[in-house]
Amino acid sequence: MSTSPDLSQLTLGVLGGTGPQGRGVAYRWALGGLSLVIGSRDAERAEQAAAALRSRSGSHRVRGADNAGCAAAADLVLVAVPFDGHATLLELLREPLAGKIVIDCVNPLGFDNRGPYALAVPEGSAAQQAAALLPESRVTAAFHHVSAVLLDDPEVTSLDTDVLVLGDDREATDLVRALADAVPGLRGIYGGRLRNAAQVEALTANLIAINKRYHAHAGIRITDV
Amino acid sequence: MSTSPDLSQLTLGVLGGTGPQGRGVAYRWALGGLSLVIGSRDAERAEQAAAALRSRSGSHRVRGADNAGCAAAADLVLVAVPFDGHATLLELLREPLAGKIVIDCVNPLGFDNRGPYALAVPEGSAAQQAAALLPESRVTAAFHHVSAVLLDDPEVTSLDTDVLVLGDDREATDLVRALADAVPGLRGIYGGRLRNAAQVEALTANLIAINKRYHAHAGIRITDV
Repeated sequence: MSTSPDLSQLTLGVLGGTGPQGRGVAYRWALGGLSLVIGSRDAERAEQAAAALRSRSGSHRVRGADNAGCAAAADLVLVAVPFDGHATLLELLREPLAGKIVIDCVNPLGFDNRGPYALAVPEGSAAQQAAALLPESRVTAAFHHVSAVLLDDPEVTSLDTDVLVLGDDREATDLVRALADAVPGLRGIYGGRLRNAAQVEALTANLIAINKRYHAHAGIRITDV
Repeated sequence: MSTSPDLSQLTLGVLGGTGPQGRGVAYRWALGGLSLVIGSRDAERAEQAAAALRSRSGSHRVRGADNAGCAAAADLVLVAVPFDGHATLLELLREPLAGKIVIDCVNPLGFDNRGPYALAVPEGSAAQQAAALLPESRVTAAFHHVSAVLLDDPEVTSLDTDVLVLGDDREATDLVRALADAVPGLRGIYGGRLRNAAQVEALTANLIAINKRYHAHAGIRITDV
């Protein structure tokens, strides 16, 4: 994948596409004219979300399906479900996701009266859990730090965040970087191997603390790159 | 500490001030005319490093001491020792560090043939280990991501990195932010409670991976703040 991949030929699935992060990324990809399948537990809710996205983005290349249908139809999926349903969902999708690139953007966080904190994940991180459950897929981790609020706001025409893309498969991380670059203002940066995903996921807790202190929608940029 | 603290009245200790990270931060603080005590296991090596810093920075406010002398003389210390000597050193310094602000910048990382990775720390992070060993000190975590190479390079007149400052004591984190702001190009940003330090420390592994891939000295900036 040394040349720019033709993203317009891909069908992108968004598992958990009715939640804030999945919906936000899907909106940006739809604005870019990419072909999308919005996945949800409930096919009808998925189709409603897809209809809303078609209307908001002006793209007709968005449809809905239940998560299994989404996984089967897509060439590549973004996993954007809450962490507490993450393992259960992926176990069911091992077959339809075999051979495909999976982008995990799940942040395993807890919240108490002192704010957010990182949850311990037996596999090390949500992304490594995905890799363990999907041994035949090409699992990457990305899109953790992009504010769902800003993604979803039509008045924000350019985001201001780098997307750290982690994974052990160069062709896969290059393609995922291109999917970040396809969104105005985002920049996909290779961020290391999958075994270094835990801290990238957990850093979202720090960004939430920053948002609270500074009344911001914080993102990160990597300097000198 | 709602008004700007007068940093020039403080004596700053740098434990492990002869290592690359400690030496680099000390150089920048010396350039800013701040009063410094360079700590090292060996008092003579510390004085040699202090003499070199006086010469390089043009400041006469730099002296050396063994680590215990450094802790005793300083109003505030930066802990910049390798992680494998971290607990042993801090255990010995509980008394001289009592009541003082401690800035931990230690990154518990391992390296193998696949590159860097985060080490598991029983207390959760190096900073939390410091807090457990120094119950009477005001422990913060900061300065993890500033490139030692750039800090030490006299031709780099302005760094390009935010310094995430973590801690549970607002006055302490505000002072540490001011110590970051005192270095041209750095900006101190509150980054959350100490319990969220592990991922900030571990993110250094990702920055090392980025440096390798992009031939860079990567830092991070927080956007929308």
